[in-house]
Amino acid sequence: MIQCKFCKIIRGESDAEVLFKNKNAIAILDINPIHYGHVLVMPQRHRATLVEVPDEELLDLIKATKVVSHAIVKSLNPPGYNVFSNNGKAAGQSVFHFHFHITPRYDDDNIRFVLKLKKYGGDDMAVYAKRIRQQIQSSPVHELL
Amino acid sequence: MIQCKFCKIIRGESDAEVLFKNKNAIAILDINPIHYGHVLVMPQRHRATLVEVPDEELLDLIKATKVVSHAIVKSLNPPGYNVFSNNGKAAGQSVFHFHFHITPRYDDDNIRFVLKLKKYGGDDMAVYAKRIRQQIQSSPVHELL
Repeated sequence: MIQCKFCKIIRGESDAEVLFKNKNAIAILDINPIHYGHVLVMPQRHRATLVEVPDEELLDLIKATKVVSHAIVKSLNPPGYNVFSNNGKAAGQSVFHFHFHITPRYDDDNIRFVLKLKKYGGDDMAVYAKRIRQQIQSSPVHELL
Repeated sequence: MIQCKFCKIIRGESDAEVLFKNKNAIAILDINPIHYGHVLVMPQRHRATLVEVPDEELLDLIKATKVVSHAIVKSLNPPGYNVFSNNGKAAGQSVFHFHFHITPRYDDDNIRFVLKLKKYGGDDMAVYAKRIRQQIQSSPVHELL
């Protein structure tokens, strides 16, 4: 945990532009932004990915994400913004301390999140839905809702 | 609102593979997936973007997003997943009823969310931080936290 660069920022051992803090969440500027004003919102405690963030922390995190999104819209006036999280190396995660990215977006900024979408064939869609649905229903996490 | 295709699904007027529902949130399969098992989680009430989702609905939404992410991981075993939302046309939003995308991700799947990151020069980072921070501090939304 001592090696986590976000934990170091949270402990005050590394510098960052801190925008906001509450009991469970902290928001900082990303030093390598997609666009200027790109913010990271993360739990103060070290959690690797979304599914590992306890609900209490998650609620503070999403409220902080909304507040910061609102502030980006009001202060920078971008016509759009993305909120995203990469969970796992395969998904592009590079710091394994969960964080939501919030980035302003601009018309014709040549950012394409996805170039090609897939189509489901035959019964594939029903099959995938069934697999995920069964897992939701059998999951103890489901009881939290 | 009658023209919103997600509202039609929520009202039962259009078909969809519904994975999960609670009082405020509903999860369906995206018919044009990034990868099979790509899910959309949205508020049952029509809200355009993240900042317009009231906190009570937002909490149910993020809990549902966590539950579905967990179910995708357990049922499909992808090595990673992205959670993202596009807010505004400039950000890639095509249906103006707020939704979180959750997509499984796989090693070397050739999806690059962003090709080129920026660097801040001079005092730019401090200037951007100040602008957003001042907005957060002056925002009535801030009091919600």
